[in-house]
Amino acid sequence: MTTVIIKDATPEHWPAIWPFLRDIVAAGETYTWDRDVTQEQARAMWLLPPPGRTVVALDDDGTVLGSAKMYPNHMGPASHIASASFMVDPAHAGRGVGRALGEHVLDRARADGYRAMQFNAVVETNTRAVGLWRSLGFEVLATLPEAFRHPSKGYVGLHIMYRGL
Amino acid sequence: MTTVIIKDATPEHWPAIWPFLRDIVAAGETYTWDRDVTQEQARAMWLLPPPGRTVVALDDDGTVLGSAKMYPNHMGPASHIASASFMVDPAHAGRGVGRALGEHVLDRARADGYRAMQFNAVVETNTRAVGLWRSLGFEVLATLPEAFRHPSKGYVGLHIMYRGL
Repeated sequence: MTTVIIKDATPEHWPAIWPFLRDIVAAGETYTWDRDVTQEQARAMWLLPPPGRTVVALDDDGTVLGSAKMYPNHMGPASHIASASFMVDPAHAGRGVGRALGEHVLDRARADGYRAMQFNAVVETNTRAVGLWRSLGFEVLATLPEAFRHPSKGYVGLHIMYRGL
Repeated sequence: MTTVIIKDATPEHWPAIWPFLRDIVAAGETYTWDRDVTQEQARAMWLLPPPGRTVVALDDDGTVLGSAKMYPNHMGPASHIASASFMVDPAHAGRGVGRALGEHVLDRARADGYRAMQFNAVVETNTRAVGLWRSLGFEVLATLPEAFRHPSKGYVGLHIMYRGL
């Protein structure tokens, strides 16, 4: 495992994020995004204005290995609940990038004053992600039955995962 | 109980919706919206473009008694899950307006091809709404603990409610 450096994302990182983000979304196995999302739509949904934050995971030579965004999951009287989304370049899987991003996002959310983090839609067949979030203290609060149409596995469940901060 | 007529909302209904919607949001007891939402923001969040729909409940003299909006809760491979939000003018509470809107929205979601409806944030102390949704076939899939800061009751839970269509 090599060093993973987490930094706030800047517009200059986008051209490196888009190719793997596009491939992950187009595969349709893990994300509740339109599979044919345009680059313009994706950029607006990924590089968030405050109070959202977007970070990148970098190799020590500056290669973008993955990215995460965090944001309030609810508004108003429930805005102390955060959410987050993660994209790791499949070419750099297995190097602890997702875990490094997850730990960073939890620390950052805590520092920002959030009281909990809630993931709204973790595909139950994405066992790697489910296992990672469990190992970082999340539990499955509920599973929406048949809520996700997987391209090869048919209708599968979506986990709502949660942890206090 | 008087007749309740449900119609698609038009921009002409907005001036009648805004006063009670504003009061409900400002009270901060039931909605996860910023309590000081502006009329412009509220209008954009309530009168939805397709595939969203907004309806009004009218008295037989055309008085707006309440309103509801429905929309996909998720995108892409999970866009077959609907959500909805409801506002009933407190001046016309207890007349079956919420139930009429709820039944209409369920029928409409079914007709639109959705496979389930999911409410993301029903405040657990809003027992009238929780009871209504239960009577319309929804169950509490999970409760996010202390997820809503109630102005007088402190941190209370948010129910995620769900039913198949």
